[in-house]
Amino acid sequence: MNHEDLQRLLDDVKHGALETQHAAERILEALRAAPFEDLGFARVDTHREVRQGFPEVILGLGKTPAQIAAIAERIISRGQTLLVTRASREAFDALHTIAPQATFHDAARVITLSQAQAPQGRGTVLVACAGTSDLPVAEEAAITAEVMGNTVDRLYDVGVAGIHRLLHERARLESARVVIVVAGMEGALPSVVAGLIQTPVIAVPTSIGYGASFGGIAALLGMLNSCANGVAVVNIDNGFGAACMASAINHL
Amino acid sequence: MNHEDLQRLLDDVKHGALETQHAAERILEALRAAPFEDLGFARVDTHREVRQGFPEVILGLGKTPAQIAAIAERIISRGQTLLVTRASREAFDALHTIAPQATFHDAARVITLSQAQAPQGRGTVLVACAGTSDLPVAEEAAITAEVMGNTVDRLYDVGVAGIHRLLHERARLESARVVIVVAGMEGALPSVVAGLIQTPVIAVPTSIGYGASFGGIAALLGMLNSCANGVAVVNIDNGFGAACMASAINHL
Amino acid sequence: MNHEDLQRLLDDVKHGALETQHAAERILEALRAAPFEDLGFARVDTHREVRQGFPEVILGLGKTPAQIAAIAERIISRGQTLLVTRASREAFDALHTIAPQATFHDAARVITLSQAQAPQGRGTVLVACAGTSDLPVAEEAAITAEVMGNTVDRLYDVGVAGIHRLLHERARLESARVVIVVAGMEGALPSVVAGLIQTPVIAVPTSIGYGASFGGIAALLGMLNSCANGVAVVNIDNGFGAACMASAINHL
Amino acid sequence: MNHEDLQRLLDDVKHGALETQHAAERILEALRAAPFEDLGFARVDTHREVRQGFPEVILGLGKTPAQIAAIAERIISRGQTLLVTRASREAFDALHTIAPQATFHDAARVITLSQAQAPQGRGTVLVACAGTSDLPVAEEAAITAEVMGNTVDRLYDVGVAGIHRLLHERARLESARVVIVVAGMEGALPSVVAGLIQTPVIAVPTSIGYGASFGGIAALLGMLNSCANGVAVVNIDNGFGAACMASAINHL
Amino acid sequence: MNHEDLQRLLDDVKHGALETQHAAERILEALRAAPFEDLGFARVDTHREVRQGFPEVILGLGKTPAQIAAIAERIISRGQTLLVTRASREAFDALHTIAPQATFHDAARVITLSQAQAPQGRGTVLVACAGTSDLPVAEEAAITAEVMGNTVDRLYDVGVAGIHRLLHERARLESARVVIVVAGMEGALPSVVAGLIQTPVIAVPTSIGYGASFGGIAALLGMLNSCANGVAVVNIDNGFGAACMASAINHL
Amino acid sequence: MNHEDLQRLLDDVKHGALETQHAAERILEALRAAPFEDLGFARVDTHREVRQGFPEVILGLGKTPAQIAAIAERIISRGQTLLVTRASREAFDALHTIAPQATFHDAARVITLSQAQAPQGRGTVLVACAGTSDLPVAEEAAITAEVMGNTVDRLYDVGVAGIHRLLHERARLESARVVIVVAGMEGALPSVVAGLIQTPVIAVPTSIGYGASFGGIAALLGMLNSCANGVAVVNIDNGFGAACMASAINHL
Amino acid sequence: MNHEDLQRLLDDVKHGALETQHAAERILEALRAAPFEDLGFARVDTHREVRQGFPEVILGLGKTPAQIAAIAERIISRGQTLLVTRASREAFDALHTIAPQATFHDAARVITLSQAQAPQGRGTVLVACAGTSDLPVAEEAAITAEVMGNTVDRLYDVGVAGIHRLLHERARLESARVVIVVAGMEGALPSVVAGLIQTPVIAVPTSIGYGASFGGIAALLGMLNSCANGVAVVNIDNGFGAACMASAINHL
Amino acid sequence: MNHEDLQRLLDDVKHGALETQHAAERILEALRAAPFEDLGFARVDTHREVRQGFPEVILGLGKTPAQIAAIAERIISRGQTLLVTRASREAFDALHTIAPQATFHDAARVITLSQAQAPQGRGTVLVACAGTSDLPVAEEAAITAEVMGNTVDRLYDVGVAGIHRLLHERARLESARVVIVVAGMEGALPSVVAGLIQTPVIAVPTSIGYGASFGGIAALLGMLNSCANGVAVVNIDNGFGAACMASAINHL
Repeated sequence: MNHEDLQRLLDDVKHGALETQHAAERILEALRAAPFEDLGFARVDTHREVRQGFPEVILGLGKTPAQIAAIAERIISRGQTLLVTRASREAFDALHTIAPQATFHDAARVITLSQAQAPQGRGTVLVACAGTSDLPVAEEAAITAEVMGNTVDRLYDVGVAGIHRLLHERARLESARVVIVVAGMEGALPSVVAGLIQTPVIAVPTSIGYGASFGGIAALLGMLNSCANGVAVVNIDNGFGAACMASAINHL
Repeated sequence: MNHEDLQRLLDDVKHGALETQHAAERILEALRAAPFEDLGFARVDTHREVRQGFPEVILGLGKTPAQIAAIAERIISRGQTLLVTRASREAFDALHTIAPQATFHDAARVITLSQAQAPQGRGTVLVACAGTSDLPVAEEAAITAEVMGNTVDRLYDVGVAGIHRLLHERARLESARVVIVVAGMEGALPSVVAGLIQTPVIAVPTSIGYGASFGGIAALLGMLNSCANGVAVVNIDNGFGAACMASAINHL
Repeated sequence: MNHEDLQRLLDDVKHGALETQHAAERILEALRAAPFEDLGFARVDTHREVRQGFPEVILGLGKTPAQIAAIAERIISRGQTLLVTRASREAFDALHTIAPQATFHDAARVITLSQAQAPQGRGTVLVACAGTSDLPVAEEAAITAEVMGNTVDRLYDVGVAGIHRLLHERARLESARVVIVVAGMEGALPSVVAGLIQTPVIAVPTSIGYGASFGGIAALLGMLNSCANGVAVVNIDNGFGAACMASAINHL
Repeated sequence: MNHEDLQRLLDDVKHGALETQHAAERILEALRAAPFEDLGFARVDTHREVRQGFPEVILGLGKTPAQIAAIAERIISRGQTLLVTRASREAFDALHTIAPQATFHDAARVITLSQAQAPQGRGTVLVACAGTSDLPVAEEAAITAEVMGNTVDRLYDVGVAGIHRLLHERARLESARVVIVVAGMEGALPSVVAGLIQTPVIAVPTSIGYGASFGGIAALLGMLNSCANGVAVVNIDNGFGAACMASAINHL
Repeated sequence: MNHEDLQRLLDDVKHGALETQHAAERILEALRAAPFEDLGFARVDTHREVRQGFPEVILGLGKTPAQIAAIAERIISRGQTLLVTRASREAFDALHTIAPQATFHDAARVITLSQAQAPQGRGTVLVACAGTSDLPVAEEAAITAEVMGNTVDRLYDVGVAGIHRLLHERARLESARVVIVVAGMEGALPSVVAGLIQTPVIAVPTSIGYGASFGGIAALLGMLNSCANGVAVVNIDNGFGAACMASAINHL
Repeated sequence: MNHEDLQRLLDDVKHGALETQHAAERILEALRAAPFEDLGFARVDTHREVRQGFPEVILGLGKTPAQIAAIAERIISRGQTLLVTRASREAFDALHTIAPQATFHDAARVITLSQAQAPQGRGTVLVACAGTSDLPVAEEAAITAEVMGNTVDRLYDVGVAGIHRLLHERARLESARVVIVVAGMEGALPSVVAGLIQTPVIAVPTSIGYGASFGGIAALLGMLNSCANGVAVVNIDNGFGAACMASAINHL
Repeated sequence: MNHEDLQRLLDDVKHGALETQHAAERILEALRAAPFEDLGFARVDTHREVRQGFPEVILGLGKTPAQIAAIAERIISRGQTLLVTRASREAFDALHTIAPQATFHDAARVITLSQAQAPQGRGTVLVACAGTSDLPVAEEAAITAEVMGNTVDRLYDVGVAGIHRLLHERARLESARVVIVVAGMEGALPSVVAGLIQTPVIAVPTSIGYGASFGGIAALLGMLNSCANGVAVVNIDNGFGAACMASAINHL
Repeated sequence: MNHEDLQRLLDDVKHGALETQHAAERILEALRAAPFEDLGFARVDTHREVRQGFPEVILGLGKTPAQIAAIAERIISRGQTLLVTRASREAFDALHTIAPQATFHDAARVITLSQAQAPQGRGTVLVACAGTSDLPVAEEAAITAEVMGNTVDRLYDVGVAGIHRLLHERARLESARVVIVVAGMEGALPSVVAGLIQTPVIAVPTSIGYGASFGGIAALLGMLNSCANGVAVVNIDNGFGAACMASAINHL
C-alpha cells in the first residue's frame, strides 16, 4: 500500500464508498502484509529486488537439494534471476528437472539462470587472485559479479612472491572501477595492489594454505591489518560477498 | 529413607523390636543407598525425575548403539519417557527391536517414546530460527520442548537481513511465554528479538556458516555480547539444552 | 496511534471533520514517530519501559561522566528509575550534583535511584557465588535484581572444592524461583547446582582466576558445556545481564 | 620521466644535441629515481597523492612526538594536507610549534591541517554508530572522510536493541552514497542496515564491550559473517580505514 | 556425629533416656551441620584439614586486604597453620596487626604462619626451574611445600639451552621423591627431566616470555604435549598447586 | 661401563695387561656407546626400562602398521613387555603374525603383551570417569596401569550432574592410593573429587562434547583452573599419560 | 633489455637507423615485458631461476592433477628441474604420461625430475627428526634439499625423552653446515640441538600429536619461544620451506 | 679433560705415578665437572662462547636490576663481551656502577660492553623494517648483529604500501649476505623481499598494530605462511634472535 493507494482508500471513505471500520482493517492489514512467501522451512524474500537491487540468492550450504529446488522454483516462477552459491552437483541435479536452462559453474560451485537483464554496472570489476589454488573463490566472485550485471576482468596467479607478474599488469588494475583481490596463505596481495592504485579494493581471504594458515585466518588477519588505504575485507572464501559489494559500488 | 521411615524405625528401637546396632546399620546404609542403577559402563540416574522433573535423557554422542539401547531399556522398563538426542539411525535401529513404539525424528536426530503424560507448561514456547540451515537445531529444541510437556510455536527463516519477515510476526513473539532463538553466522537475531519483547530469550548459536564463523564461535560470541536485555545463551547447536531451560521456565 | 485513535480519525474523515489528505499525512506521520529522545551523542529509548518492562539502563563502560550525567538526567526527569552499571566514582560525582538522592553501590560499581515502584516478581531470586573474589559480579546481579522488583537471597562462597558448604544450603536453593550462579576459575558450580534442583539456573562466568583461566574463558566454556540441564549462560562478569534474565523469568 | 619527456630526449639524441651514452644514463637514472624523501627513520611517500588521490597519512601509533612532527613538517612544507590519526595530545603539542594552524580533534584523536582543497566526493558518506561508547571511532571516520573531501552525515546511537531508532532514519540511510557502520559488542548493526538499503556498507567493529567481546573480536566476527549482502569490514577500531574506503567509493 | 556418637544416641533411645522424636531430630540436624564458618562474604572451610590434610589456604588474588585479614584471623584462632598465596604487601600489613608472628616471603608473594607441626613427607621435593625469571613461581612452590611438611631441594637456572647444567645434577634429580619443574618460554625442561628419571614430575608453566609465549600458553602446551612419561601439569604460574600435588604424593 | 668395569680396566692398565692408548680408546668408546638400537626410521630406546622402570611404549599414532610391527618385534625379542597405544586394528593384524600371543583391547585401542612380571605398585589406582562416552580414554588409562603393575579399580559414569552417584562411592575413592579422573564437557569432576579426598588426583580431559567444548579445550581449561588442591592434568584424551604418572606415584 | 642492448639501440637512433618514436616504443615495451608465461589459470614464473637460484616449484595443494601436469609440462620443456610438493598419486599419474622419467617419493609426497645439475652447496644439510611419525615432513625436507644441490645427512628418531640418543650424535650435528630439526608434540628438540652447536638451526614444527597439540600449534609455539640462540622457524609441516632456507644458507 | 689430558693421566697410571683408584675418581670427576658458575639464582654458562661462538647473553625481561648486575659482573670479570637485551634504564644504572664503560642503546633497550674483538662475519647483514614504529625491534637486531661481529646495513620504512620505496633499494638488498626483515601489521614485507632476492631472509614480526593485529599474531602468521622461498621466522619482537641467526649464517 503506497501513498497513492492510501489516498484513494481515504477518498472512498470520504465519499461513503467504504466504511471507516473496513478502511481501518485494510490499512492495518496492509501494514501487516509482509513481502515474503512462506514455504514452512523458508520465507522467500520476494521484495528483496526492490529493496536491494537483486533478487534473493540461495546459499546452498546446509540446505538439502530438495529445499534448494523448492526455493529456486519460487524465484524462477516470478521471472527473477536465479543464483545458488556453494551448490553441490546433487543440488544442481535436483534443480535441473524443474529448470533445464540453469547452468552449473563447476569450478565456482555456482548455479545460475538469468531471466531478466540486470542493470549494467558503470565500469569493470577486476578479479585478481594470488595463486591457482584460489581459483574456486575467484570464480565464485567473477560469476556472481557477471550475473549481477558487471563486466569482469580476470587477472589470476599474480602472487607477491614474483611481484613482476603483478607490476606488469598495472594498467589493467588502474582501468578497473573496483578490484576484488583473492588470496590465501599470508594474504599480502591486497596491500600491494592497494598501494599501486586509487580504486577501492575488496579483499577475500581464502582457506588455501596449511599449518599456521589455520584455514584462512592468517590471510584474513593480514588483510584486516593492511597498511595500505582503501581496503575492506569479507569473510574467508566469500567470493560471493565480495562480488555483491563490488557490484553495489559499480552500480553507484 | 524419609522422615516417616526414620520415625518408624526409631519407634521400633524404642519398643525393643530392633537392636540399636542393627538400627544404626540400617540408617547408615540408607544414607549410602543412592538412587541409580549400575550397568557397569553407565549409572542410570533413576531418581532424576524426582529431583529435576524429567527422567534422565540419553545424549547419543559418543555412545555405541548397543550402549544406547541398553540404557534406554532401563528407562523404558520403569515406565518413564524416553528421549535420546544426537541419535544416529543405527542407534534407532538397535533401539527399535526393544521398543517398537519409539519414534525417530529425522531432521532433529532425536528418538522419543512418551510413556507418561508430562506435566504441562503454562504457556507457549516459541522456537524461532534465522535460516533454513538452522532447522536441525531448531527441531531438536522444538521436539524436546514438546516431549517435556510444552506447547511449541515454530517461527522459521526470519533472519535479520530481511528484518520485515521478523517484524511481521511480532504478535506471535509477544504471545509466547519463553522464546528460543536459533541462529548461525553472525547470530544477531536474539538481540533484535529481545529488543522487541519482554519475554525471556534463550539464544542457541549454530555451527552454520563458513570461514570466520569458526563452527559457531562467531554466533556464540555475538549472542554472549548481546546489547539487549533478557538473553541467556546455551552451547553451540544445543537445541536440547535450550529446550530444557525453556521448559523449566515454562513450568514455573 | 493505537487502534482507537485510528478508528476516531477515520470517523472524522467520514464525517468531513478531516480532509483525506490531512488524514493520510497524520497516519503516515504517526507511523514514523519513534519513541526516543535525541541528545546528539545518544538516543534515549524513552519507550523501553513500555516495550520491555524496565526503563533504559546506562552501561557506564566507555562513556564519560558528563555523558552519563546527561543521559541520566533525561531518565530521571521522566520519573523513571535510574540504573547505571559499571559506574566509576567519577561518574557518580558528576551525577550526584543533578541527583543527590542517587546511591552508589561501591562493591557492585552500580548507581541506583528508584523513583517508581517496580512491579514485584513472584518469587525469590537466589544469587550464589563460588568465592569471595566473585563478589563484585554477584553484587551487580543482586542489586540489579532488587531494583527491578525482585526479592534476593544471597548465598556466597559455596565453591565446589568444599561441596558440603553447598549441599548444606539445598533448601534455600530449592525455595528460589530462579537461581543465578556466579563463578570464576573452572566454573563448575552451575553444573552442580543445576544437578540438585529443578529451578532454571543462569550462569555467570567471572574473570577471576589466573593463567589458563584467560580472563574468564575457562569458566565460560565450562558453563556452556554444562552436563546438567536447565542452565543458560551470560557474558563474562555480566551480573547485570543475569539479573535481567532472572527478573524476566521471575515476573512471568 | 613520462612519455613526453622520453620523446623529447630521444629527439635530442637524434639531432645530436645529446650523446647516446648520456641519454642512456639519464633514462636509467630516471627509472631509478623513486618518489620519496628519506628522513633516516622514515621515507616520506611524496608521490602518494599522485598515485592514490590523497597525501601520505601519519599513523600516530608507536611514533614519538618528535618523529610525528618531523614527518608532518615535510608534508606541510610541500603544501599538502596533513592528517595524523591515533594522535596523543603530546604529539599535537610537538606539532603545534611548527604548524600553529593545525587542529586537534579530541574525541577522534586526530590532527588535521587542510592546505589544499580536496576534490569533492559525489554524494554523502553516512557514519552510523550503535552506541555512545563507539563515538571515538565514528568520529575518526567522520573527520577523515571530511578532510578527504566528502560530505558527512552522522547518525549515532542507533543500536539494534531498540531497532525503531534505526528504522526511523531509513530515509537518511537511503540518501547516502556510502554508509559506514560502527559497532562494538555483538556487531549486529551492519547486517540490519545492509538488509534495509542498496548502498555499499563498510563495517567497523570496535573494541567496546567486555568479557567475551575480547576487545572487538566478537563484533569483528559478527560483521565478517554478516548474512546481508553488500558489507565489507575493516580492522577493529579502524575508523580511518573505513573512511578511506568510503572516500574512494564516493569519488568514483 | 561419627559412628560412636550414633551408637550412644541409639542406646539412649533404647533405654528410654531419649524420645525417638528428639533422636530423629538430632540425627537429621547432625547430618545438616556443615563444617564451615560463615563470615558473610566467605565460608571458612574449618574441616578441610580433616578432609584433606592441610587447613584451608587463602588465595590472595581478588580479595581485599581486609577480607584476607578477616579470614586469616579465623584460621589462626583455631590454631591452624596459615598460608596466603598471591599476597600483596598491603595484605601483609593488614594481617600483621592481628598476627605479628606471620612472615612475608617477598619473592614468592606468600605469607606464612606455622602454628602446628605438619606431618612430615617421606622424601625430598625437588624444585627445578629453567631460568632466573621463573624464580617467583619456583619459590611459591618451594615455600608451600615446606610449610606443608616437606624437605625441599632447590635447583635453579638449569634450562635446556645449556643442557650440561642439568645433566650435571642428575644425582640430585634421582634422589628426590617428587620433582617440580618450573619453566616459561618453550617449557621444554619437564620433558628432558622426565626422560632422565623415574620419579613423578609435576610441570609448572610460567608466564615468562614475550610475543608468541602468549603469557605462558606456549609453555603450557609444550608441557601438556610432553613426549616423556610421568609428567602432569598445573595451571600457568601455579607454584602453589604444584606443591599441593607434590606434597600429597610425598605424604603417601 | 659402570664403576666396577672402570676399576677393572684401570687395574689392567696398572698391571700392564692393557696399553694406555687402548684403554683410552675403550673408555671413550664406552662413553659414546648409547643404549638404543637403530632401525633407520626409529631408534628403539633399549635402556628405558633401566632408566624409567618400564620399557619403551609405542605410540601408534602416525606410524604405519609395518613400522609398528618392526619396532614391536625388537621389544618382544628382548623379552620386554609390549604396550602399543592408539593402535588400529590394522596395526594389530600386522603385529599378530609376529606375536600371536598379543592382545587387542578394542575399547581402549591398546595392544598388550606381558612378558615379564612388572613390579607391583603399593596400592590401588582408581580410574573414575564422568560419562559412558569417556570410556575409551578411561580404559586406555586402566589397561596401561594394569600392565605397568597396578591394581585398578574402575568407577564409571559418576558425572557431577547427578552428584549423589559420586558421593555414594566416597569410600572407594578414599581407599585408592592415586585417583585418575577422566571427564569431557565442562570437566568439573576432578575438582569435586579432589575436594572430597586427600589422595593425589590426575585429571584427564577428553574430547567428548560438541560446540564450545572445542575438542576438549573446555574440559582441559576447567581442570587446569581447578579450585581444589592436589590436582594435576595431562593432555586431552591422554589416558596413557595419566596411567604413567599414576603408576610412578603408586610405585613410590 | 640490458645495458648493452640499450646502448646499441641508442646508437641506432643516433645514426638514423631507427626513428626516435620506434625507439621509445621498444624501450617502453621492453620495460613492460615480464618474465612469465600465462597459462590462463597460472602464470609460470620462468625467470625465477635467474632471480632466486632455483626454478619455480609447484605446490600440489589445491591444484587439480591436470593443472599440475600443465604447469609441469612448461617447466620441463624449458629444461628446468621439476619439483612438485604435496603431490598426490593422482597428480603423479597425470604427470607421468608427459614425463615418464619423473620420480614419486611416496613417504615425502614429492615428485622430482632433475634435468640440470644444480649448483652444489658448500657443506652438509643435516635433517633431524624427533620421532618416526615426523618422517613425511623430514623426507620432504631431505629430498627438496637434495634436488637443490645439497648433500643431506638424515638423523631420525632422536627426541628429547631419551636424550642420550641425541647426545650420542653430537659429532654429526657439529659437522653439518646447516641443521633442519623436525619435531611435533612439544617441539623441544630444536632448543636442545641449538644449545649444543654453533650451526644455524631451522626448526619445522609438525602436526603430529593429539589433543592440546592443536595440529602443530604447541610445537610451533615451543620453537618460536626457543630459549636457545640461532633458531628460526618455518610453517607447520613445511619441510619444503625449511629446505629452501637451508639450501640458500648452504650455497652462500 | 680433553684427549691429551686423558692420555697423560693414563700414562701416569701405567708408570705407577697414580693409583688406579685415584685415576678413576679423577676421570669420573672430570666427566661431572660442568662449565658453569652457580650464583644461587643463576648458573652462568661460562663455556657458551666455546660451544656457540658468543658468550651468554642476559635477557633483561623478568630479572631485577640487581640480578642483572650480578650476572653481568661475572661475564665482564672473565673478559667476555657483555650484551643485555630488554634492559630498562634501572638495570643500566645498577650495572653502570660496576661497569662504567658499558653503553645503553636507548631505542633498542640494549646494553653492550665489548671487551674482546668478535670474529668478523664474511658479509653484510641488512636490517630492513616496514615502518618507523618497528624501529626498536630493528635496532635490537642491528646492535646485536654489530656486537657479534657483523657489518650492518640499515634500510628502514620500506613497507609494501608504497612498494617503489623497496624496489628502489634492490641493489642494497642483493649485496647483503643475510637479510633481516622486521614488520608489524600484516607482515607482508618478508614475502616481497624474499621474492626479489636469493639471500636467506629472517623475518621478525613486531607487535606494532592494533585491533586484529593481536599483538603481532597477524604479522607472525603472515610470515609463517609466506609464499616466497627462503624465509624463516623468529618470535614476535625478537630482534635479538633474528640477529643471532643472521650472525650464525654470516659467520659460516
